[in-house]
Amino acid sequence: MTEVEQTPALIVDRATALRNIERLRDYSQQHGLRVRPHTKTHKSLEFAVEQIKAGAVGLSVAKAGEAEVMSQVTDDVLVAYPAIDGPRVRRLAALAVTKTIRVAIDSPAGVAILDDAATEADSTIGILVDLDVGFHRTGVQSSDEALAIAQAVARSKSLRLDGLFFFPGHLRDSVEPQISKLRQVDAIVLDAIDALERSGLHVSIVSGGSTPSLYQLHHLKAITEIRPGTYVFNDMSTVAGGYCKIEDCAARVTATVISTAVPGKCVVDAGTKTLAADRNSVRPESGFGYVVEYPDAKIVRLTEEHGEIDITGCDHSPKTGDRLTLIPNHICPCVNLQAIAWTRNLDGSLQPLRIDARGLIS
Amino acid sequence: MTEVEQTPALIVDRATALRNIERLRDYSQQHGLRVRPHTKTHKSLEFAVEQIKAGAVGLSVAKAGEAEVMSQVTDDVLVAYPAIDGPRVRRLAALAVTKTIRVAIDSPAGVAILDDAATEADSTIGILVDLDVGFHRTGVQSSDEALAIAQAVARSKSLRLDGLFFFPGHLRDSVEPQISKLRQVDAIVLDAIDALERSGLHVSIVSGGSTPSLYQLHHLKAITEIRPGTYVFNDMSTVAGGYCKIEDCAARVTATVISTAVPGKCVVDAGTKTLAADRNSVRPESGFGYVVEYPDAKIVRLTEEHGEIDITGCDHSPKTGDRLTLIPNHICPCVNLQAIAWTRNLDGSLQPLRIDARGLIS
Repeated sequence: MTEVEQTPALIVDRATALRNIERLRDYSQQHGLRVRPHTKTHKSLEFAVEQIKAGAVGLSVAKAGEAEVMSQVTDDVLVAYPAIDGPRVRRLAALAVTKTIRVAIDSPAGVAILDDAATEADSTIGILVDLDVGFHRTGVQSSDEALAIAQAVARSKSLRLDGLFFFPGHLRDSVEPQISKLRQVDAIVLDAIDALERSGLHVSIVSGGSTPSLYQLHHLKAITEIRPGTYVFNDMSTVAGGYCKIEDCAARVTATVISTAVPGKCVVDAGTKTLAADRNSVRPESGFGYVVEYPDAKIVRLTEEHGEIDITGCDHSPKTGDRLTLIPNHICPCVNLQAIAWTRNLDGSLQPLRIDARGLIS
Repeated sequence: MTEVEQTPALIVDRATALRNIERLRDYSQQHGLRVRPHTKTHKSLEFAVEQIKAGAVGLSVAKAGEAEVMSQVTDDVLVAYPAIDGPRVRRLAALAVTKTIRVAIDSPAGVAILDDAATEADSTIGILVDLDVGFHRTGVQSSDEALAIAQAVARSKSLRLDGLFFFPGHLRDSVEPQISKLRQVDAIVLDAIDALERSGLHVSIVSGGSTPSLYQLHHLKAITEIRPGTYVFNDMSTVAGGYCKIEDCAARVTATVISTAVPGKCVVDAGTKTLAADRNSVRPESGFGYVVEYPDAKIVRLTEEHGEIDITGCDHSPKTGDRLTLIPNHICPCVNLQAIAWTRNLDGSLQPLRIDARGLIS
């Protein structure tokens, strides 16, 4: 089979995804950075395996359930999330009996609950202290706070202090190195390292990253590993940021034109329940994705099952029944919406793509 | 069990949902309108059955797969969507062998493909002609176009002309009847009825509706049936529009505070992959939902798995580990995101809620 029977359908081009994975491998090798891809984007063992084949030292996840799934293909999982409530810590502590499990946390309460769970399970959990380097979502606010958590970890029974963690979500929307922001990140990280090491604590891992900041990260002095997610498939936000080109977008939605009744528009069978409602993070005014066959078209409105495309700028018009190829603004929630998806193999054939970690609660 | 073990978790309060269903029943009885709820909101047989018990004449769906699921509990399904491509029409034609299946269409191409499929399956599909009454998404633009489609249906082998269809998506953001818009809708609908009936075609069904327009619809002269979806659970957009109160929101997400490290904020384990990224359709500046325990808080940013809540306006602060109750802006995509959900029974106990029609492709 080379075409999907039913639409809307997410199809991942394996050749493009492998090229994206290789590009990251080359960058990381050039700069001596370890790679720990965030699997939130693909949630699939198929692509996790490709990332590991390309030299990833382990995988990043957001959920305990994702850690369980991804530990099928790696022995080394970082929970890049403050997983500090009862059910999560119990599941992670159990997993840590046989796997290397690390958790990034920003609270003394997290130390206590993770230590209790690991002690109960007779396992050891590695801890990275989460620093707020400017995105202001999670992360401690000072090297004193980082030190307090690190010392609590050092005093704990069943936790191991492994290092520091940050998410530079504010480094984006610019393919050029954002030198002043990078300097601030560096200062915060180096300050924390200094505080810990002066207290006799060893920082072996400094884990940071995102796709928009990806190719700036080697400018950071102390970083040891990077955690991009979106880079594996890319999307219109990464294109708009200048981090990749349209042809690097591996995951695309095939949709069918189901109405052309309203003048100047066509309507496809992909709305927010297929593409997700995310606006382009760099160019929010650009609409809800890109129509490959009609580069001058604009996806002007999404409702749940309808994608409305303004075609007034196009020199010809789609007809009902035509299939169009859409690239979403944000591929991560789009993948998460698909109960069924497809990989296009190198020979052009399609095979089902399992989104193994889709829809897990915690 | 009266509390969920793991978060984030969507919990539907059965008593509230039943009250919402009864309110619609009372309104429809008062005004002599038939009710055909749109099941896109709950996608669940459990609540479809409750709607039918309360007198719904049938159900509305957007997908062929949803029609297959919902036909388990009703013999009468309207596909409120231009389902006019090959796979959809074949599945609907097969279903129409034993069920009453209607499809709303706006193109002559749709007549041909549905007729072929029904003829092939030896079934009959009912057709409603979709009129654009002002939302400009789908629907024919004139009574001449409506007549042309209706006449093509009348000439077809296996289709039955049943009437007219419209989606008044532009009647919203106001609980007061929007008289001038309602008059326009009336004029368009009456004009189409006139064109069809003068050509000897009978219009037995005039189907229209949405939740925001719901309690205005009896002002329309020719409408026979209404198709609200969201009303069963409600959400912050329906609250902001004045169509219901906070206590009428039946479906809420229980989330856990996982970080309080950033001053003035707490972070919960519900982001766009739990709540959906939709802004409030009436008050887009109001944030990404409502925190029941902290009415003065504002959900200021959602990323995939983080919900960031500004608590600077609150007189006390949540702690890590606390559970908060969130009401989403748009409940329909939120329900669609949940692999596992719960119903709170009248006795306070929780039971799993199956989202039977979740994630179906077409």
